[in-house]
Amino acid sequence: MDVQTQMKELVAKAAAARVESGMILGLGSGSTAAIVIEQLGRRWRAGDLQDIKGVPTSFQAAQLASEYGIPLITLNEIDHIDLAIDGADEVDPAKNLIKGGGACHTREKLVDSRAERFLVVVDVGKLSDVLGSNFALPVEVVPGAYRQVMDQLREMGGEPHLRMAVRKAGPVVTDEGNLVVDAKFEAITEPAKMEMQINNIPGVLENGLFVGLADEVLVGEIDGDRASVRRL
Amino acid sequence: MDVQTQMKELVAKAAAARVESGMILGLGSGSTAAIVIEQLGRRWRAGDLQDIKGVPTSFQAAQLASEYGIPLITLNEIDHIDLAIDGADEVDPAKNLIKGGGACHTREKLVDSRAERFLVVVDVGKLSDVLGSNFALPVEVVPGAYRQVMDQLREMGGEPHLRMAVRKAGPVVTDEGNLVVDAKFEAITEPAKMEMQINNIPGVLENGLFVGLADEVLVGEIDGDRASVRRL
Repeated sequence: MDVQTQMKELVAKAAAARVESGMILGLGSGSTAAIVIEQLGRRWRAGDLQDIKGVPTSFQAAQLASEYGIPLITLNEIDHIDLAIDGADEVDPAKNLIKGGGACHTREKLVDSRAERFLVVVDVGKLSDVLGSNFALPVEVVPGAYRQVMDQLREMGGEPHLRMAVRKAGPVVTDEGNLVVDAKFEAITEPAKMEMQINNIPGVLENGLFVGLADEVLVGEIDGDRASVRRL
Repeated sequence: MDVQTQMKELVAKAAAARVESGMILGLGSGSTAAIVIEQLGRRWRAGDLQDIKGVPTSFQAAQLASEYGIPLITLNEIDHIDLAIDGADEVDPAKNLIKGGGACHTREKLVDSRAERFLVVVDVGKLSDVLGSNFALPVEVVPGAYRQVMDQLREMGGEPHLRMAVRKAGPVVTDEGNLVVDAKFEAITEPAKMEMQINNIPGVLENGLFVGLADEVLVGEIDGDRASVRRL
């Protein structure tokens, strides 16, 4: 196993170790969150975890959890989630996030915001001093509104692009049937304000800014040929 | 024709008279907006209006305009709307609105906010000193999120109810495939703030507060057996 994979496994294992029997769990999306679900699946199959229920943040998470037989439940059937574990595309020192690289940020925000504890798993490459430095902000929009949402994002100083699909003609369509506009800002210095402003643009379902939601961030690092995990 | 119908016709005619050839028009939803479209349709068929294009705010508006042969265009094909004419469920003295009684407020807000001029047509019964006094605020939510959105609205002091359908089992489903939660607040004293707060709840697509969008309101009144129209 190469050191990159070692690192991801290490972070995912550290996160999965926080899970206890009886919990309602938010199951994240993306490559690291997928390893978390696999780890949980192994503990579940081995009988080490009992009476857990998973709330998936995406088709991907639901399918993977199902492969391991982890029981799933929907947001409308519960009044809380005990612990959500999810990845992120960019993380600032205040634990604010940009998410949405996998176009699942609407359901991710629903699940992660419903959790009493939200644990983020990332590799060190996702850390930045100011959000927006490395990653364009994903904005989920209803299909009939992408042009005017892009105009509004331009007025706010962003450079918006409609996310185009691979292995499908035209744009990416989300699990919810919407489109994604990626808006590059030079720096998002007031993420709470920007999150609200963008969500107030007509036609916007949700943007990828997760402000004040993460309780803890586990960061995977590689030092030479050794992988390690630290808390942010 | 009874005086109530006379009044609606009068307001609708006054609004339709503002339309000129060459305009891109926002076509509203609801009973009064429907009469506006009929008036426009008659002018269009009579050759009194030429080269107009309509941007419908709903299935209802699109279908009605089509019956008259008014050419339709989508929001993604245009960079502005010259004039939008639409109804409202509640109007305050500052021309802020509550809309969404017809469950079309997401597309209505897209169209009305894209218009250089937004003209509202209502009867006098829709006026109130403070929004929320008479009408519950409609909030369009993704189906997977209604329970937690209702919890959040309760925390904000609202009394939320999932809007149930007639002639269909279960809830109303919007033209966009979502659900509507009607939240009764005692009084919405800061509509701009509340609009943003509710739009920032994960799972909310759009709420029915239209703040600072209306340029002019035409109000139909009945005085004895006479109908009249005044500007707000």
